[in-house]
Amino acid sequence: MKFKIDKIDGNARACTIQTAHSVIQTPVFMPVGTVGAVKGLDAVDMSEILEAKIILANTYHMYLRPGADVVKKFGGLHGFTKFPNSFLTDSGGFQAFSLSDISKPDEYGIKFRSHIDGSKHYFTPKSVIDTQHKLGSDIMMILDDLVALPATKKRVDESIKRTIKWAKEALEYHKFKQNEGTGINQNLFGIIQGGTDFDMRKICAQSLCEMEFDGLAIGGLSVGESNEEMYETVENVMPFIDKNRPRYLMGVGTPEDLVENVYRGVDMFDCVMPTRNARNGTLFTTFGKFNIKRAEFIHDDEPIDKACDCYTCKRYSKGYLSHLFRAKELTFYRLASLHNLHYYLNLMKEIREAILNSKFDEFRREFYLKREI
Amino acid sequence: MKFKIDKIDGNARACTIQTAHSVIQTPVFMPVGTVGAVKGLDAVDMSEILEAKIILANTYHMYLRPGADVVKKFGGLHGFTKFPNSFLTDSGGFQAFSLSDISKPDEYGIKFRSHIDGSKHYFTPKSVIDTQHKLGSDIMMILDDLVALPATKKRVDESIKRTIKWAKEALEYHKFKQNEGTGINQNLFGIIQGGTDFDMRKICAQSLCEMEFDGLAIGGLSVGESNEEMYETVENVMPFIDKNRPRYLMGVGTPEDLVENVYRGVDMFDCVMPTRNARNGTLFTTFGKFNIKRAEFIHDDEPIDKACDCYTCKRYSKGYLSHLFRAKELTFYRLASLHNLHYYLNLMKEIREAILNSKFDEFRREFYLKREI
Repeated sequence: MKFKIDKIDGNARACTIQTAHSVIQTPVFMPVGTVGAVKGLDAVDMSEILEAKIILANTYHMYLRPGADVVKKFGGLHGFTKFPNSFLTDSGGFQAFSLSDISKPDEYGIKFRSHIDGSKHYFTPKSVIDTQHKLGSDIMMILDDLVALPATKKRVDESIKRTIKWAKEALEYHKFKQNEGTGINQNLFGIIQGGTDFDMRKICAQSLCEMEFDGLAIGGLSVGESNEEMYETVENVMPFIDKNRPRYLMGVGTPEDLVENVYRGVDMFDCVMPTRNARNGTLFTTFGKFNIKRAEFIHDDEPIDKACDCYTCKRYSKGYLSHLFRAKELTFYRLASLHNLHYYLNLMKEIREAILNSKFDEFRREFYLKREI
Repeated sequence: MKFKIDKIDGNARACTIQTAHSVIQTPVFMPVGTVGAVKGLDAVDMSEILEAKIILANTYHMYLRPGADVVKKFGGLHGFTKFPNSFLTDSGGFQAFSLSDISKPDEYGIKFRSHIDGSKHYFTPKSVIDTQHKLGSDIMMILDDLVALPATKKRVDESIKRTIKWAKEALEYHKFKQNEGTGINQNLFGIIQGGTDFDMRKICAQSLCEMEFDGLAIGGLSVGESNEEMYETVENVMPFIDKNRPRYLMGVGTPEDLVENVYRGVDMFDCVMPTRNARNGTLFTTFGKFNIKRAEFIHDDEPIDKACDCYTCKRYSKGYLSHLFRAKELTFYRLASLHNLHYYLNLMKEIREAILNSKFDEFRREFYLKREI
């Protein structure tokens, strides 16, 4: 993986990441394709209509079904899904933690039950690397020890110690496997834990930056803490994250969260929000968001956002979309997801453009001004 | 509407219909877009990917939601849905009959309750013309008096008498409105009823052919009778339907039904089968149909049909589709619907080609031979 900083504007950065499958310009938002498909959309929608250069797939889901060996047989995620650009896979730890009714971390890994059939499984720092090698993702994530917030200092301390230990194990194992010829083109990111405790975050960040990860992620945020706590935590940990590697804030967030965290130095984001909201009828625009189910839209012959040039806005009226939503027509979910993802990807393009022109502060001001109309 | 017979081969015909919105080559299969969208697909899927020249929309559904006046305000079905080619709308009678818990025909029309909110409504031969004028469909259907099969001779007799009376009323009303400037580019088809009683069908066909309908439909079949009864009824009524107008068999059917009824002289078909089956995982191929949920497909890296050049078969394996189906991913429904509709539309293209080359008998033999493999 090649990483280059194209421009710095305050703490905000425009960078270029080159993987074996695509050139990714940052700041970048990665749409979430949980089971190897972004919900409602196919590989053509993602690569040709939305021109996404990287999407995320969930290791937990692919591991359980169809299984990593099946995906490997089809040539990894790229061969299986036909999405030609980059994939980032998480470690599966977060889903084992959030989707399973019994999920128990111990010193060596995480025990959990499948949400599909209740079968028992155990993820270890090495096993999730093996799984991600089979999936063939461009960027792999280490197994980390997540904590629900709020958490006791003791639990957070345990979490960062375990996360650092597992990180070391994972990295050594990945290097070992690469020497054996496996995962040659795959990259590995460390994940900084520490809850909203600045000292813990600092210790974890410094320890992980000493290791040869290809990038660093901030995990364990957007799990119930306030926006202010999230922004402050990012702001405080950022000085301790190596500037010469990509910095990824996991599972975040709203358009406002993206702007605020780019402002604090984050390069990469992922979130289910644009697609999940689309399915609920919530649509994003330059002027804020609204829900298509409001009665006034039944007669509205204008697009979702007059300034938007997405697939959906170029063709369909709010009136027709409102009708499709009320009738629960499947095509609504696709059209709304195309619009919301276009909004997110386009927001990141505009942010990058502003950074390249040293106008990010101005962009950020105008971003909020438009939303107050 | 212009109608031209391009070629006759036995009883099978290849014709061309020209409406204000498209040139339709027959035999034609019309995908069903119940609420103004073919389930799972959008206008681009229909017009650009599948190249459908005509689709069907259900008057009953559009009348109840969003309402014909709303659709009219958007410029009719074409302006509302952005599908640029032809629309055929049914009268709404069949849905009032099949979707409503209380549905009562009388001498003047059909009383029913909305399946959405239980509100009471009344369709008359004239009211459904008014509604279809507002929808702006290229081909409108008259209100007919449907009978559930099997039915007593008395009920079938009542049905054809009422259908003939309503047909006359509808046609006169449409002509009257056209003279006033409404529905100028819209065409009206009569519907032949009569159950599986050949005499009744003959009387009804002859009476309707005396009227100036732009085309004639055979209604009230594919409602529970056997295939043999359906084929025999079509075969027996066909000599009494004017050869110089399009002949449409409503709500039919399987690929075999299409071949058999083209063989008996039918030009136009519609059915929810390709899209409904797609959503259940049943996929059509030259060699017959199969369900994607069979375990053997999990590891299958071949397309649904190696001979198929549809959007889905050009890109995706049965293995990936099987995975999407198991995970209940929305995009499966679109990809499977694209394949099944392509199969149906392509079957009609091949049939037309065979007729134009006076080889329909040969085509029909081979069609069955391939399915026996």
